[in-house]
Amino acid sequence: MREVAVIGIGQTRVYEHWDRSLRELAGDALIMALMDANISYIDALFAGNMLSGAANRQQQIGSYIADWVGLKQTEGVRLEAACSSGAAAFRSAIMAVASGDVDSALALGVEKMTDSPPAEITKGLSTAADADWEADQGLSFVALNALIMQRYMHEYGWKHEDFAGFSINAHANAVNNPYARFRKAISREEFIKATIVSEPINIMDASPIGDGAAAAVIVPLENAHRFTNRRIIKVIASSAATDTIAVHSRKDPLWLSAAEKSAHAAYQQAGIPPKQIDLFELHDAFTIMAALSLEACGFAERGKALVLAIEGKIAVSGEIPICCMGGLKARGHPVGATGLYQLVEVVQQLRHEAGKNQIDKARIGMAQNIGGSGSNIITHILKHV
Amino acid sequence: MREVAVIGIGQTRVYEHWDRSLRELAGDALIMALMDANISYIDALFAGNMLSGAANRQQQIGSYIADWVGLKQTEGVRLEAACSSGAAAFRSAIMAVASGDVDSALALGVEKMTDSPPAEITKGLSTAADADWEADQGLSFVALNALIMQRYMHEYGWKHEDFAGFSINAHANAVNNPYARFRKAISREEFIKATIVSEPINIMDASPIGDGAAAAVIVPLENAHRFTNRRIIKVIASSAATDTIAVHSRKDPLWLSAAEKSAHAAYQQAGIPPKQIDLFELHDAFTIMAALSLEACGFAERGKALVLAIEGKIAVSGEIPICCMGGLKARGHPVGATGLYQLVEVVQQLRHEAGKNQIDKARIGMAQNIGGSGSNIITHILKHV
Repeated sequence: MREVAVIGIGQTRVYEHWDRSLRELAGDALIMALMDANISYIDALFAGNMLSGAANRQQQIGSYIADWVGLKQTEGVRLEAACSSGAAAFRSAIMAVASGDVDSALALGVEKMTDSPPAEITKGLSTAADADWEADQGLSFVALNALIMQRYMHEYGWKHEDFAGFSINAHANAVNNPYARFRKAISREEFIKATIVSEPINIMDASPIGDGAAAAVIVPLENAHRFTNRRIIKVIASSAATDTIAVHSRKDPLWLSAAEKSAHAAYQQAGIPPKQIDLFELHDAFTIMAALSLEACGFAERGKALVLAIEGKIAVSGEIPICCMGGLKARGHPVGATGLYQLVEVVQQLRHEAGKNQIDKARIGMAQNIGGSGSNIITHILKHV
Repeated sequence: MREVAVIGIGQTRVYEHWDRSLRELAGDALIMALMDANISYIDALFAGNMLSGAANRQQQIGSYIADWVGLKQTEGVRLEAACSSGAAAFRSAIMAVASGDVDSALALGVEKMTDSPPAEITKGLSTAADADWEADQGLSFVALNALIMQRYMHEYGWKHEDFAGFSINAHANAVNNPYARFRKAISREEFIKATIVSEPINIMDASPIGDGAAAAVIVPLENAHRFTNRRIIKVIASSAATDTIAVHSRKDPLWLSAAEKSAHAAYQQAGIPPKQIDLFELHDAFTIMAALSLEACGFAERGKALVLAIEGKIAVSGEIPICCMGGLKARGHPVGATGLYQLVEVVQQLRHEAGKNQIDKARIGMAQNIGGSGSNIITHILKHV
């Protein structure tokens, strides 16, 4: 298996892009990544997307986007794994280049959600749950996460306000990210008084959907220096695992077993323990998911992740910085694109191009993308070489 | 890049399976493939599917199916490239094993189309065309193919009845395939007098949709003998290419440039000319597509593919047998599953397990799966070793 590196990144702002279509957003991020990589052609395009069929009446977006940007005849395919579609595309690009079958690949994540009525989007998002046993019973994704959060509070004795730190940190970091949807800090009081969506989840626990695209160019590590004089970012681990599709099928709904499996496989591939990770772009679709992810990946004991938020250890200057550019909560969550945003942000940090949010001496970064209620979890670890 | 082999195959009949759900069909084919391979666990599942979001209100079917069959925590992802989703899943499985990242993979194609009203399915299928410039203008896939067929007849002087041989051959072969949807031979007269769908395409030119699943187990070639005493089927070529998404963007709508590119790349990888191919499972979604595929892949001169059908050279006993188990026309076309059916059928032939339709001394077989109006074309060549 040959080693691979990321040599180019691109992203659009996560926003309500009423003036940009699905393909325009995808093209913007893709071309930015090619220019950043100083490369004009790639062998294969892996496009992560969840909802283009329902929200944009457009599938087959591998061909669709290759055609749009003028990548004539380039191989193109779509990867779908609900909200983990972005990381799935990145992992496919890695395996394609690692196999030697292609010499360059572009991983793209794109989602255009604001062209459809919100009810259609809620219905579309529910296709990530079990159609028969969850969605058809009226359980939306917020409701599923609310049940999990309620159980977490009951089991470990936390109050809702104890989750505030996750949201405050994400919003504070987004202020300095020009690509973030919400560039506005929030106070503890704003968190506590926010409108309830599904008890106990309020709008400050929940990430906003949005339109956006992010992209990364992947080549064999040995060729990377031919293209760029920038810091070369090597992929040192890539791992994916699944869990039951329905939350009720799990022995322990408070344990993300697929996060544990994919993260620990990643640590083994990278040959490092969690404490060597300089930043962790986790999947804070809801504050409860940030907590469960930190626990399953070994950054906190079971039931104790909130301590990291309360003690400020998740800040850019803390022990284990998370959501450094705003996370899903404040950068925004264009579902099938999110996994690529996380990876692009890790690359920014490892290149030391993260501006005011730069982590001092960042060398190793991890990104973890979650699909469904923890049913598909993909972990990557990147390192500057 | 390590070499890979197919060691197990499985398929359900293509039919209107009112008593089987999406996951049940997928599970049936998947477990049959695992049993055929004499293997009880695989590292990764690649599921090709086009319409589960629209037709079954279910996405994230990588996790969904892994969960259903009890492949606990197994990596699982969905590949979507319209009607070429099946071959896209197979190609991903190949690259995953070739890269060394996983040691076994299962490629699955599944589609459950009869749970939704036909109008919804037509709308769903139209998401493979350009949403803005084709589908929204009322152009269905049949209509797009009718325009291409009309042009072909105009350009080269063929009559509609000259296409009869493709349909007659497919139906004749399906009689002996227990997994085929239509196990009934048709006459030349039945072809000519069939009901028009979209002039000049009639129902004997057009393949039927259906419910079905097919699967293949892929492992490194060097390990294949550990599992099976059967003939080992090596993947000697895998290649994908795209074309413009909209037909009107092509300089020559009668030339499948992505078929030409992927087939010729495949010949190069395999180190063989087309004439060494013993059978060719092509994508006869419409009779015109069978003709264009034969021409672009080098089996006939431009405008001359119909001669092969008229002279019987496409029969099982002919020079270049196609649709040996019924093709899309008579085995059926469960869109995202079709690419896997083609590959499973090639394996049957190369193992010499094709029953009454067995091609004498078959050694090398090719499968080509087409997405959209030729906008995504994936070619594989397999060989028994």
